[in-house]
Amino acid sequence: MPARTLPETLEAAQTASRALATLTSVQKDTALAAVADALEAESSSIIAANARDLEAGEAAGLAAGLLDRLRLDEPRVAALARAVRDVVALPDPVGVVVRGSTLPNGVGLSQVRVPFGVVGAIYEARPNVTVDIAALALKSGNASVLRGGSAALHSNERLVAVIRTALESAGLPADAVQTIDAFGREGAAELMRARGLVDVLIPRGSADLIQTVVRESTVPVIETGAGVVHILLDASADEAMAVDIVRNAKVQRPSVCNAVETVLVHRDAAERLLPPLLAALRHEGVLVRGDDRARAVDAGLEPATDDDFATEHMALELSIGIVDDLDAALAHIRRFSTKHTESIITGDMAAAERFLAEVDSAVVMVNASTRFSDGGEFGFGAEVGISTQKLHARGPMGLPELTSTKWIVRGAGQVRG
Amino acid sequence: MPARTLPETLEAAQTASRALATLTSVQKDTALAAVADALEAESSSIIAANARDLEAGEAAGLAAGLLDRLRLDEPRVAALARAVRDVVALPDPVGVVVRGSTLPNGVGLSQVRVPFGVVGAIYEARPNVTVDIAALALKSGNASVLRGGSAALHSNERLVAVIRTALESAGLPADAVQTIDAFGREGAAELMRARGLVDVLIPRGSADLIQTVVRESTVPVIETGAGVVHILLDASADEAMAVDIVRNAKVQRPSVCNAVETVLVHRDAAERLLPPLLAALRHEGVLVRGDDRARAVDAGLEPATDDDFATEHMALELSIGIVDDLDAALAHIRRFSTKHTESIITGDMAAAERFLAEVDSAVVMVNASTRFSDGGEFGFGAEVGISTQKLHARGPMGLPELTSTKWIVRGAGQVRG
Repeated sequence: MPARTLPETLEAAQTASRALATLTSVQKDTALAAVADALEAESSSIIAANARDLEAGEAAGLAAGLLDRLRLDEPRVAALARAVRDVVALPDPVGVVVRGSTLPNGVGLSQVRVPFGVVGAIYEARPNVTVDIAALALKSGNASVLRGGSAALHSNERLVAVIRTALESAGLPADAVQTIDAFGREGAAELMRARGLVDVLIPRGSADLIQTVVRESTVPVIETGAGVVHILLDASADEAMAVDIVRNAKVQRPSVCNAVETVLVHRDAAERLLPPLLAALRHEGVLVRGDDRARAVDAGLEPATDDDFATEHMALELSIGIVDDLDAALAHIRRFSTKHTESIITGDMAAAERFLAEVDSAVVMVNASTRFSDGGEFGFGAEVGISTQKLHARGPMGLPELTSTKWIVRGAGQVRG
Repeated sequence: MPARTLPETLEAAQTASRALATLTSVQKDTALAAVADALEAESSSIIAANARDLEAGEAAGLAAGLLDRLRLDEPRVAALARAVRDVVALPDPVGVVVRGSTLPNGVGLSQVRVPFGVVGAIYEARPNVTVDIAALALKSGNASVLRGGSAALHSNERLVAVIRTALESAGLPADAVQTIDAFGREGAAELMRARGLVDVLIPRGSADLIQTVVRESTVPVIETGAGVVHILLDASADEAMAVDIVRNAKVQRPSVCNAVETVLVHRDAAERLLPPLLAALRHEGVLVRGDDRARAVDAGLEPATDDDFATEHMALELSIGIVDDLDAALAHIRRFSTKHTESIITGDMAAAERFLAEVDSAVVMVNASTRFSDGGEFGFGAEVGISTQKLHARGPMGLPELTSTKWIVRGAGQVRG
């Protein structure tokens, strides 16, 4: 049994958040450095706890992609510690003056970054998210309440215990970081209804999980999304670049949300690009499906249905469609995209600019791998997630996205006329 | 019967939003100038439509404060046109580059402001909101779908008709601004569930309305709040300043959310400040309630209950509480504030700085009237509302708060290593 009820846990988070809001950057950085050191020092115990989750996951028949995201080994624990140190190196967003002015009547206005207060996160089978969100929340002056899912229960409990001990050793309240995994599904449901106690809720994981949080939550949500990610190979696409980028975007880490799921090929480039592209993908063991027109070019393709075009596979699977022109590609993307990341490979300036302007996604690219759509790659240190909604944050989220603002008004007795 | 179903209305808004997103600033400003001219030219027909709503409101026994907010007369219609012209004069937020960098591998990143797409608004009995939101949405490249409530049905229908005609005359799609009042309550409910079709929903009005939208909506909401607004008269508060500011904050326009509802008085200043303050408030016809300690100073006060301290009166009513010190004032505010606006009147620098740092509200003030907590006063032109949540926007919202951003990534074939 947890020592506290869930309302007591949220109350403790609020109390901790008030202490965090007044810490200096040096105090927060010292505590984060202690967390990084502790993660390295406790690497063996963390990997041991993770092994219990992996064993249970294998027994339960978790998909290979999920098991990969769940797995912690020495290099990955070292990477977690490095990610925390990256956060130390980032500037503190709290106290930054965003805008300011003096009104004609002499009243002074300034809009200043302040912590949210309490940040909730609901995610699945990704212990690295536990460390990323705890560290980013702490640096931005927020307490975090983490629900990491039963598949990573032991990993997350161990990670949070290591973090809390390190925080206390640095003189910070341990309740700055709490896990509510022990409260099970009902705990997650209560967290979603805790408007007023939790300032923002970030779901990460499957489309199902995210949609549940969006539907059930009264706490403001940042939707971090499933990625049905598209690459368009335009008529003028360079062959080597097209093959390199699609291979990288699919194969380098297929289990993450910025991996490509659909390649659209301009009809004028299909005969030229499909053979080398398919050869490269098959060499990497990718299961490639195609629409009727793609199968007319290569009869070895499995048929791609609308369901395939709408699916985030998280595996070495990919669908190919042939399109008549840019308009047809934009229409396909509008229909199937989750508005995460899309890229066009082209040598045609006008096509590139239209694609960048008209695709309504968080990240739009020209001649680059969709795998760059990532907070770490963008220089944000660790990342909280990739927002696929348009409110507050869009695309990879870093420290400033974990703050709110407050207007400070200084007068000398002014009243409104 | 409306000519369109609600889904058709939202579809039309989406189509219009795509056209709006590619307009130049000049095109938008020309259309807004036409809207302002049309509002003035149609002043009589707008006031006539408003008269029907006022008559129905009086018959239905609407409170004086609500009737005041509903009323349009020549000066108020002229003010609506002026507010639209103020929006014309504001810089276009769309296309502004918020951040940018070049990664070590040569990939170029820029984060650019883009319209949300479709903005929904649900509000009550405030025809000025119809014009404010339509104008601000248009300038920021968004289509708006407005649900203004049955009490202002005729006013809003007339205003939207005038706006749509003016937009068409300027070559813009009329569907950039639509009202869904004709769909009644079920229309509002459908709007709240239209995630994916509506990008953001802004409720304005009573606490009940706002809480319903927050609870029922799957579309991301910006909570614009009820204002249980506090002024703290510190021990060192100047008497004339204290009386001036409280009087202004309560009396100048009691029916709006930045009007003060509770005055907290430091016990060391109660004997000095209460008599002149009460004399001034009573002279203005304010019904003043007090806690037991305030009533010990002035036996003529009505008793103030916890319910009074938690109520936004929207009328010439005010509650007074005596507090032992700043900590007690902060605790009272933490308990009863809706996190909208609070002000301290003080000559004590340390008390001012603690108040500004520790009060967790959208707008915190020292020695100024809470009536300044307003988009117009802040120089935003018209205002969309005052956000009392911490996500995306906090405090008075203007044009930039009606945009999202998009990451533009330009490469030359880079893949992730």
